[in-house]
Amino acid sequence: MAKNLTKRSEDYSKWYNELVIKADLAENSGVRGCMVIKPYGFSIWEKMQAELDRMFKETGHQNAYFPLFIPKSYFSKEASHVDGFAKECAVVTHYRLKEDGKGGVMVDPDAKLEEELIVRPTSETIIWDTYRKWVQSYRDLPLLINQWANVVRWEMRTRLFLRTTEFLWQEGHTAHATKDEAIFETEQMLNIYAEFAENYMAIPVVKGLKTESERFAGALDTYCIEALMQDGKALQAGTSHFLGQNFAKAFDVKFTAKDGKQDYVWATSWGVSTRLIGALIMTHSDDKGLVLPPNLAPDQVVIVPIYRSDEQFELVSKVANEVMKELRAKGIRVKFDNRDTHKPGWKFNEYELKGVPVRLAIGPRDVENGTLELARRDTLTKESISRDDVSDIVVALMDEIQKNLYKKAQDHRSENTSHVSTYDEFKEVLETKGGFIYAHWDGTNETEEKIKNDTKATIRCIPLDSKDEDGLCMVTGKPSKRKVLFAKAY
Amino acid sequence: MAKNLTKRSEDYSKWYNELVIKADLAENSGVRGCMVIKPYGFSIWEKMQAELDRMFKETGHQNAYFPLFIPKSYFSKEASHVDGFAKECAVVTHYRLKEDGKGGVMVDPDAKLEEELIVRPTSETIIWDTYRKWVQSYRDLPLLINQWANVVRWEMRTRLFLRTTEFLWQEGHTAHATKDEAIFETEQMLNIYAEFAENYMAIPVVKGLKTESERFAGALDTYCIEALMQDGKALQAGTSHFLGQNFAKAFDVKFTAKDGKQDYVWATSWGVSTRLIGALIMTHSDDKGLVLPPNLAPDQVVIVPIYRSDEQFELVSKVANEVMKELRAKGIRVKFDNRDTHKPGWKFNEYELKGVPVRLAIGPRDVENGTLELARRDTLTKESISRDDVSDIVVALMDEIQKNLYKKAQDHRSENTSHVSTYDEFKEVLETKGGFIYAHWDGTNETEEKIKNDTKATIRCIPLDSKDEDGLCMVTGKPSKRKVLFAKAY
Repeated sequence: MAKNLTKRSEDYSKWYNELVIKADLAENSGVRGCMVIKPYGFSIWEKMQAELDRMFKETGHQNAYFPLFIPKSYFSKEASHVDGFAKECAVVTHYRLKEDGKGGVMVDPDAKLEEELIVRPTSETIIWDTYRKWVQSYRDLPLLINQWANVVRWEMRTRLFLRTTEFLWQEGHTAHATKDEAIFETEQMLNIYAEFAENYMAIPVVKGLKTESERFAGALDTYCIEALMQDGKALQAGTSHFLGQNFAKAFDVKFTAKDGKQDYVWATSWGVSTRLIGALIMTHSDDKGLVLPPNLAPDQVVIVPIYRSDEQFELVSKVANEVMKELRAKGIRVKFDNRDTHKPGWKFNEYELKGVPVRLAIGPRDVENGTLELARRDTLTKESISRDDVSDIVVALMDEIQKNLYKKAQDHRSENTSHVSTYDEFKEVLETKGGFIYAHWDGTNETEEKIKNDTKATIRCIPLDSKDEDGLCMVTGKPSKRKVLFAKAY
Repeated sequence: MAKNLTKRSEDYSKWYNELVIKADLAENSGVRGCMVIKPYGFSIWEKMQAELDRMFKETGHQNAYFPLFIPKSYFSKEASHVDGFAKECAVVTHYRLKEDGKGGVMVDPDAKLEEELIVRPTSETIIWDTYRKWVQSYRDLPLLINQWANVVRWEMRTRLFLRTTEFLWQEGHTAHATKDEAIFETEQMLNIYAEFAENYMAIPVVKGLKTESERFAGALDTYCIEALMQDGKALQAGTSHFLGQNFAKAFDVKFTAKDGKQDYVWATSWGVSTRLIGALIMTHSDDKGLVLPPNLAPDQVVIVPIYRSDEQFELVSKVANEVMKELRAKGIRVKFDNRDTHKPGWKFNEYELKGVPVRLAIGPRDVENGTLELARRDTLTKESISRDDVSDIVVALMDEIQKNLYKKAQDHRSENTSHVSTYDEFKEVLETKGGFIYAHWDGTNETEEKIKNDTKATIRCIPLDSKDEDGLCMVTGKPSKRKVLFAKAY
């Protein structure tokens, strides 16, 4: 049996790292900052991909694939873009190895590239270089394209899922004839991300706009969804960028409108990544391990047989198989763990650690009584249920657990959201309680920077749904039109 | 309307390149040797992925993800592996750019990696370095893992889909307690590839073993499926490798067996790639464009409305929408092209070019008569069918077209398969007819090499199903136990 996890109250960060490893989600690889996503972790990512991909396609997007490598010169074409990414780029300089004469290999100095290639940290430049060939007239627009891909950003301090040198993501890149259409798209995709976070991940999010200093390199506006983790820190869970005509101008992508006039194309890009798995863990899990919402759990139900003899095993297996069949017919993802290499107690721990929403145990006495033992992962409660009711109960529970997790997360967020009016109050709340803090800000980079330097808190977003409300900046006392959302962040 | 394609009989290679571009499958990118897979091409790949992924999972495999980068030192650990891949590796040497003072960026010489990283050309080394941590006892085996990923092999001469510097693929990597189990797995996956090729791609394949010189770098045995293209050249469509204990020894992956003894683990790896799209094109397509088998066609049916007035458009649209709904209810992927920006003739050409298996056209007179015009892409025949029979006819046609394409490919292969006994005969068949040629070979590298140098033909495989048949090597006259399969190859 695996040793217990560190408690969240003792060391949240250690708890997180241990959980990721012990629940078989991911591990560090021999390559600095790069992770191995293990089968169990990857199956959660596959569930996320499937739902997001469906939502993208339902809104008219198609998948495509663009090169991993970006010629260095492409990078310089959009000035703020290169500023944003130049310091974290993996660079390919050679295309061949040769024997080093000592039994190993070395880079062949004769195989140096004329122009270095950047391993994509994001694909705007290579994609807009391509769109130039695809767009001539308004008839070619909109282009609604998404890519599932790996990207590389050289990070100095990495953490599994949350910040890794290589990560998996999707990046949407769309091209439109008008500014309004592009803004509509940017907002539509933000709403899809929020819907996904809330309905599938069971994570409530705040939708908002980033301040200028936190905008994507090359964007006119960056929309984001921000979630609050159990430890009171915020996590940016997805971004959608209105890029204006910046990339169209940098890559000369023009179109002829219906009226015959030429104009640059309007752009958006939007993405979510394997980072979402980190958000999922840090929103719902507990000291016993992972807690998964049914909508994303690879196994929604696990059945564990209790027996002492082969005879008893056959007896309980018969019922277990029937129950499995019944549940599968209702569309439930269910697994019967009939391995004889592990004891029931070990299995109970294992599935708690792995966050399976519902565990059903069946022993010989259950067979006799026509019952099963049902344990819920979210509440850690157990009850005996009638064999006849099992599929009705489990189907209803999937929905109930999904909603309960969302409600718990929402309650946690409510309890950890504060409104402050003075900077002293702000600092005190930040130090004692953390969480989301709404406060007035004068709208300047300088004040934002000062707050960050003083407290490490950043403006997570200017929330879309917050009301106009005249006030005074908590730092400078200058006028402010609405509160913005602050937090320390991952 | 797009200009006509070059005819296959005029220039097969040019026909292929034009078709890939004009059918919107893929195009070359600004990055040497790397392609952009366009939405239509990518949707075919998605269909392939979905079926293969299902087949892998049904046989107990799980997906995972391993790093893109491989430290150079890992590469040297398996001697023949590094020999095989060293000459085509993209190498990351730096992790940062900086301003070059001339408005551009340059590689920052201060950000040189201590150990260079190879962009994976295949993942055996990084995966077996990971498996060492995952395997201790027989209880941890088998490991049945697959990865969908991009890989990079620096190619000097590239062609869209067939040979590109970056390509997409899946790579299975399994670990077993016994040699027999590993061989069983290698053969099982070969059979899955053959089943996929035949039942989904409608491509008949020869299953066989590679000769020593054509084996995967690091394998004890490489199994392959070989397909014959329309121009008489062979294409290797998938490989499955029995790796013995080579990688386990190189990366020190041992396990404790039930009896307490320690042994190295047995390995397999297997993969297919976006190259399959090239095979699909070159097996079925014709001078009018792509021909897709229904099982992989993104759109199986397209409905084109014929009209001269808004009133007629409404009339035919009503029927078209009903037919679409009816076909979708039967699980058919159907698209109603109601764009008013293009004329019916343009659309007919477009869908012929894109290989949609069935086209339905509806005009006002059809509505009146209760008919539709049905055109088959595979036979280029047209007929008028009754509105009432449309779903029955189309459902049956999906199966019929799928089978017809397979049969046509099989007939083509039969007509272009020869058995020869002398080297002169071999050379003559190769020059005049091409195709698959069965001949006796003495089993030596030298003879194989000579044939390759003389004729450019290679041994595609030692077919698994060919009977033992004593004979004499066509080149040296030395004894041979069975014929092997020769061809010029892509």
